[in-house]
Amino acid sequence: MITSINNELVKETVKLQQKKYRDRENKFLLEGFKAIEEAFNAGVKIEYVFTTDEKRYAFVPNVIPASEAVLKKISTTDSAPDAVGVAVKKVYSAEYLKDAKKVVLLENIKDLGNLGTILRTAVAFGADAVVLYGKECADLYNPKCVRSSVGNLWKIPVVYIEDFSGLNVFERFEKVATLPRTTQYLKDFSIKEPALVMFGSEADGLSDELIRFATKEVKIEMADNVESLNLSISCAVVLYKLFL
Amino acid sequence: MITSINNELVKETVKLQQKKYRDRENKFLLEGFKAIEEAFNAGVKIEYVFTTDEKRYAFVPNVIPASEAVLKKISTTDSAPDAVGVAVKKVYSAEYLKDAKKVVLLENIKDLGNLGTILRTAVAFGADAVVLYGKECADLYNPKCVRSSVGNLWKIPVVYIEDFSGLNVFERFEKVATLPRTTQYLKDFSIKEPALVMFGSEADGLSDELIRFATKEVKIEMADNVESLNLSISCAVVLYKLFL
Repeated sequence: MITSINNELVKETVKLQQKKYRDRENKFLLEGFKAIEEAFNAGVKIEYVFTTDEKRYAFVPNVIPASEAVLKKISTTDSAPDAVGVAVKKVYSAEYLKDAKKVVLLENIKDLGNLGTILRTAVAFGADAVVLYGKECADLYNPKCVRSSVGNLWKIPVVYIEDFSGLNVFERFEKVATLPRTTQYLKDFSIKEPALVMFGSEADGLSDELIRFATKEVKIEMADNVESLNLSISCAVVLYKLFL
Repeated sequence: MITSINNELVKETVKLQQKKYRDRENKFLLEGFKAIEEAFNAGVKIEYVFTTDEKRYAFVPNVIPASEAVLKKISTTDSAPDAVGVAVKKVYSAEYLKDAKKVVLLENIKDLGNLGTILRTAVAFGADAVVLYGKECADLYNPKCVRSSVGNLWKIPVVYIEDFSGLNVFERFEKVATLPRTTQYLKDFSIKEPALVMFGSEADGLSDELIRFATKEVKIEMADNVESLNLSISCAVVLYKLFL
């Protein structure tokens, strides 16, 4: 049983709270029973699990008994869960997009809660894949995003595309820009598959580059006295209407 | 200029971070320029504003110059804004619901971010009022909710109803229960006004009492491998489809 927070493996694990280590090691943290169980059931490779409750996690290959102090140290939540696991990231290349019919693109999305919620919604409403576009996108494997996706991280391929040239995989797609100002309302709008539906960041909206890239534009109807909707809300309404 | 965090007015103001003092004083905090400006423009009664930038807040009647330390003390965000104001709550009685046509009811909603987001969405999609039903509802005037509503708190009457007897104001309404399991899908569903659309808490769903109270039931179509949607997402999709 590991009780020291200075244990080498504990120290290595704590580092995964930071994006640069997650990127370097290609691993990330799974916090709590639900996250570990869902990742396990989805076939995510779990390297090891630190836990105060060995029996509960017997389904995982490599269970390491640890003290509460250790779990407190490696977890990112206010109250430490009874287990934290380390798993290997699932990486999808742009190849996965070739046969997709309904793809969501998020440009430089930064809010981790939004990202997790959008993944959950995208799965619910039948998207085939999500593209995180741009150099400033949030990290899918950030613990907060893993939490807010509530297990849906494993149900849909998420592809990172950094540069505009990477978007040529969508050549034959109908490309829809969701914009606050355009003449086409969502109520009277439908798409032809394969379709790529693009959303800008809350702060900046879609870039000019992606607006030019689009073949269609659409906006959500809303009351005049509201400036905008939360990004995850816009996304949900558009995907419900167009994908489902 | 107030520089001491032990100043009596500063101490009184800090107390408004807590629900029990907000309830007792019938006041709440407005943090930062946007919140203060929007509340001011909406006719919310602002009692005073502590600020490090007197000129910027000249539009408010009672501006009190204060040090950064004071603002740090009274604000609830990690980085203190340049002003925090104290305003009087707007209280709406059930009378406001009598002439409403599109009302949203949230039962014992607890997540403050969700509550703020739902208010914003409800305004955008044309709801006339929001009812917070039950004894365990989150406090609308919690700073986190004030923030996530992004100024929309003032654009729609929010009515607290604690007991079932308070719902008799909806006698002549079509009462729609949104449920995870029922046979009526949202796509083929429409409402007759006046309508009350009811959502349960994320943890517990709608109570049996409200399910019996309903005259219609509806569920959002979604992929089989998704357990549920985030509450603010469900709300957005249903309101977009039924109200707009």
